[in-house]
Amino acid sequence: MQMDYRIRTDLALETKERFEEDNVEVSGVVIEGSYDEERDIRTTLVKIETEKGAKAMGKPQGTYITMEAPNMSVPDQDYHREISKELAKHLRKLASLDKEKSVLVVGLGNREVTPDALGPNVIENLHITRHVLREYGTLGMGEDRAHAVSGIVPGVMAQTGMETLEIIQGVVDETRPDVVIAVDALAARSTKRLSRTIQITDTGIDPGSGVGNHRDGLNAETLGVPVIGIGIPTVVDAATIVHDAMAHLLDALEEQERKEFLEEMISPHLHTMFVTPKDVDETVKRLGFTISEGLNIALEYV
Amino acid sequence: MQMDYRIRTDLALETKERFEEDNVEVSGVVIEGSYDEERDIRTTLVKIETEKGAKAMGKPQGTYITMEAPNMSVPDQDYHREISKELAKHLRKLASLDKEKSVLVVGLGNREVTPDALGPNVIENLHITRHVLREYGTLGMGEDRAHAVSGIVPGVMAQTGMETLEIIQGVVDETRPDVVIAVDALAARSTKRLSRTIQITDTGIDPGSGVGNHRDGLNAETLGVPVIGIGIPTVVDAATIVHDAMAHLLDALEEQERKEFLEEMISPHLHTMFVTPKDVDETVKRLGFTISEGLNIALEYV
Amino acid sequence: MQMDYRIRTDLALETKERFEEDNVEVSGVVIEGSYDEERDIRTTLVKIETEKGAKAMGKPQGTYITMEAPNMSVPDQDYHREISKELAKHLRKLASLDKEKSVLVVGLGNREVTPDALGPNVIENLHITRHVLREYGTLGMGEDRAHAVSGIVPGVMAQTGMETLEIIQGVVDETRPDVVIAVDALAARSTKRLSRTIQITDTGIDPGSGVGNHRDGLNAETLGVPVIGIGIPTVVDAATIVHDAMAHLLDALEEQERKEFLEEMISPHLHTMFVTPKDVDETVKRLGFTISEGLNIALEYV
Amino acid sequence: MQMDYRIRTDLALETKERFEEDNVEVSGVVIEGSYDEERDIRTTLVKIETEKGAKAMGKPQGTYITMEAPNMSVPDQDYHREISKELAKHLRKLASLDKEKSVLVVGLGNREVTPDALGPNVIENLHITRHVLREYGTLGMGEDRAHAVSGIVPGVMAQTGMETLEIIQGVVDETRPDVVIAVDALAARSTKRLSRTIQITDTGIDPGSGVGNHRDGLNAETLGVPVIGIGIPTVVDAATIVHDAMAHLLDALEEQERKEFLEEMISPHLHTMFVTPKDVDETVKRLGFTISEGLNIALEYV
Repeated sequence: MQMDYRIRTDLALETKERFEEDNVEVSGVVIEGSYDEERDIRTTLVKIETEKGAKAMGKPQGTYITMEAPNMSVPDQDYHREISKELAKHLRKLASLDKEKSVLVVGLGNREVTPDALGPNVIENLHITRHVLREYGTLGMGEDRAHAVSGIVPGVMAQTGMETLEIIQGVVDETRPDVVIAVDALAARSTKRLSRTIQITDTGIDPGSGVGNHRDGLNAETLGVPVIGIGIPTVVDAATIVHDAMAHLLDALEEQERKEFLEEMISPHLHTMFVTPKDVDETVKRLGFTISEGLNIALEYV
Repeated sequence: MQMDYRIRTDLALETKERFEEDNVEVSGVVIEGSYDEERDIRTTLVKIETEKGAKAMGKPQGTYITMEAPNMSVPDQDYHREISKELAKHLRKLASLDKEKSVLVVGLGNREVTPDALGPNVIENLHITRHVLREYGTLGMGEDRAHAVSGIVPGVMAQTGMETLEIIQGVVDETRPDVVIAVDALAARSTKRLSRTIQITDTGIDPGSGVGNHRDGLNAETLGVPVIGIGIPTVVDAATIVHDAMAHLLDALEEQERKEFLEEMISPHLHTMFVTPKDVDETVKRLGFTISEGLNIALEYV
Repeated sequence: MQMDYRIRTDLALETKERFEEDNVEVSGVVIEGSYDEERDIRTTLVKIETEKGAKAMGKPQGTYITMEAPNMSVPDQDYHREISKELAKHLRKLASLDKEKSVLVVGLGNREVTPDALGPNVIENLHITRHVLREYGTLGMGEDRAHAVSGIVPGVMAQTGMETLEIIQGVVDETRPDVVIAVDALAARSTKRLSRTIQITDTGIDPGSGVGNHRDGLNAETLGVPVIGIGIPTVVDAATIVHDAMAHLLDALEEQERKEFLEEMISPHLHTMFVTPKDVDETVKRLGFTISEGLNIALEYV
Repeated sequence: MQMDYRIRTDLALETKERFEEDNVEVSGVVIEGSYDEERDIRTTLVKIETEKGAKAMGKPQGTYITMEAPNMSVPDQDYHREISKELAKHLRKLASLDKEKSVLVVGLGNREVTPDALGPNVIENLHITRHVLREYGTLGMGEDRAHAVSGIVPGVMAQTGMETLEIIQGVVDETRPDVVIAVDALAARSTKRLSRTIQITDTGIDPGSGVGNHRDGLNAETLGVPVIGIGIPTVVDAATIVHDAMAHLLDALEEQERKEFLEEMISPHLHTMFVTPKDVDETVKRLGFTISEGLNIALEYV
């Protein structure tokens, strides 16, 4: 059965759903949901509480908050403002922004590839304050208290020759933020979730992989400070949609047959392709704006 | 059987291949191939000679030259120079560039969406001469004879509110070029052809559709001057890869069953997604350069 | 004395000021001013009413409205909203937008050169409706009545080989808008006006020149429909600032001496340079947004 | 007299020239020139050998090589290849690239402001190898020996809230390169040197200032490894051209008068403006390519 879970998703919610579809009970994983009818936002909290749960889920222990908002992919400024505020609420709590903090925001991804440009877009819209605070103090901000916000776009390994972790470790060692917030585009299982879901987690972000090696990720262990990850799925692995369409069809066949068919049918080169919506360029710009506004609201210290 | 051909491809070569796979004979279509072993370039000429052939192929009558070069997706400058020269050879012939001509090059597509930015990229690298010739004559170019080259990036309808054809008709009426060369990113059936194939045709280009309405296309009928189309496939319709994987699997089933399954299985929303290689950004820049160098070579009048 | 006026400005207001400084009376030119203290917007109306006035001013007959708002160069979203509304008010009047119109907005300039990218930036933010109206009628817009808005970025001659006028004439002939609105970055005399002034005029725009040839401009004579020009100064000719500094110094010298000195001192190659503020990139993006919002407000048909 | 030298230049050559114009002897500074007639490249070596020389020059002790090539601002691919080779020769020597090295290339400046985008442009064209070498060794490169090349674009303080030095120190501590090569756009005194001069120095680069504080610069003292600076002037401080024009004029006046005039005349706000050539966009792209090719040649280990 494990092959069903090999298919990539960066959303803890989707991993949980797969288990539920198969009626598999996963111990050590708690799930809680709520629905805001007025704003049509569904919030799901997945908590991975034990090492065993982490292993089953293929994701590190911690809290994963998912906001699903079908209208997020639509250009409605007022609605996006609501999403930004809701995001800010979760961030303030996960990053303990009730006290003055210095916050490094990391925009992961590749600004040249549209569906991967979410992180760089967020940094562009962010209100950077650290340099002003260091030069003029909170008075320079016209405020009594203020968070010190810095931001960086490290680039991807093919552009830099360095792992993202090496760059961020260096910058964290040198500038000593209290908390890191890392923003990245994610891969989902379902095309219907693309651009409609925000995942916020206190487990940081594993660059370039949904189920990859946590040692290379940006997280509290590797960076020495709490790391909040924010992600929005913008692509589906091309192999995933073939897998799903075929698995659906194969439900009629015997399980053993089914497994063999699937293994044979899905061409490995599909894993070097991705599927993305045709209007991904506008959508990614708009979502980048929504996240950065969420950050800007969360980071206004009041 | 017709549904097999509903799946989109902009490559005449691929349409022909589908018929061959099914052992269907298409009258009025001639195909010729040659292979340059040293440079690993396979050239195929598809000629649609009758109205019946055009109907069967879903493409207008005319000549379609396809250059397949597996190494084209690789950053080897010398190899790209060879491709540019080969492309120039075909262009000189199709556009009759043995006499002084005024040539309008149209870069179709959306510069904001990486896999659709091929046309705009080509115009960026193009040697524009028309304004110099008009001001200073061929002497201003330091040549005895020269083609008058102009270029335009019309944008896509969502950006302009106008059909590409309206814009180009207006510009052609006003500037009266002898020939139009239109460059566009194409959709292929096979992911293996992405970024590895150039199609050159004297039938122009049908913006936004492989099998669409020829009345809205850029071609001799609509513009009143010969129109050469140059295209490179950079995406596959997401529905296509699901269709193909499943059709392969279904070969074991009865044909009627198969048709029903396929119709049911392929989710219509997949047609709003596309599949594209993960390194599409660099590749599209490089290919844009290769085409524009091909144009630059073809348009150097010697 | 004429050399004082040879120095380039695209602002009618500045040309008028120069005459006033020298106590020269210009007949056929009327000037009216008003000041909105609350919003700190100074509005000046320059009307060139006779051919003689046009000759003296070096600008075509017509109405030039100048809005000067010192805070416009500052990133204050609410303030920019006020400017957009004020701009919309003038546009509605000059373009007679009280009746349903089809409006072509032309974004002049070069998107690759930051201080010249104002026009292209405006088109990016514009609400384009023409294609929706043609396909679905006003119902598709969810409105009873709507203006048909189209937009184009023609590029500059070095990129296209064509004069802007040729491209726009072609597009106007083909799509037959009721009115053209052309947006361009301007050159000012005074660095203090950069990014702080909007000029709106019913005389259109003369691409690439403040005092150039009106035959090549975008205006009612060349396009056959009314043309509204909107411009914001983003550069000063490098020769201008040298000229001004020196003229100031030379006030002490005799007039003849002064003229000779100036002619000798200002190196002609300075005219191939421009002066622009160090933060021009952010400013131009913001101003592009403000203008497009002004257009969006003006073009919402209520 | 000191005020004459307050005017900003990042070129050691220009500082030296100013002293020569005034017939001031500066001890501790050695100058050597050579001229390659065939390729029209003038190479000047300025060596600041003593602390006293450094103080007089307003630049740190070390070697400054200036290549002046009038045709560098022209799009001649073959000529640029020659410049790249010549640059590579100097780099190999200054950075001791005769032994295998790990080299971090830093692209300083702001990619959004055309004349400041030289550094980011260089990183885009650079052959990055460090990640390949770490994964596959020199065999992965198809070579016996290879330099490990990494690259980073740190951004400017307004975008990151961090000083460039903080970011680079962090990255250097973490990735331990043998040598850093920093590329930046420079300010010149003379508009005639813009885009025509390359300065290569073993003193590193002082971000954001020609005569600024060496403690904040990227250099051997701050980073703990040798730092080579490569720069091309793309702007002139707007105050400079006014200063020069007026100083020229004032030669006729008495010196005391002259000093007072100048101080009064040059408006401080001119220092927030810069002067740059009208074709700076194409030029900066081309120069970025030339430098990166120089780096690519220098860093091919043979």
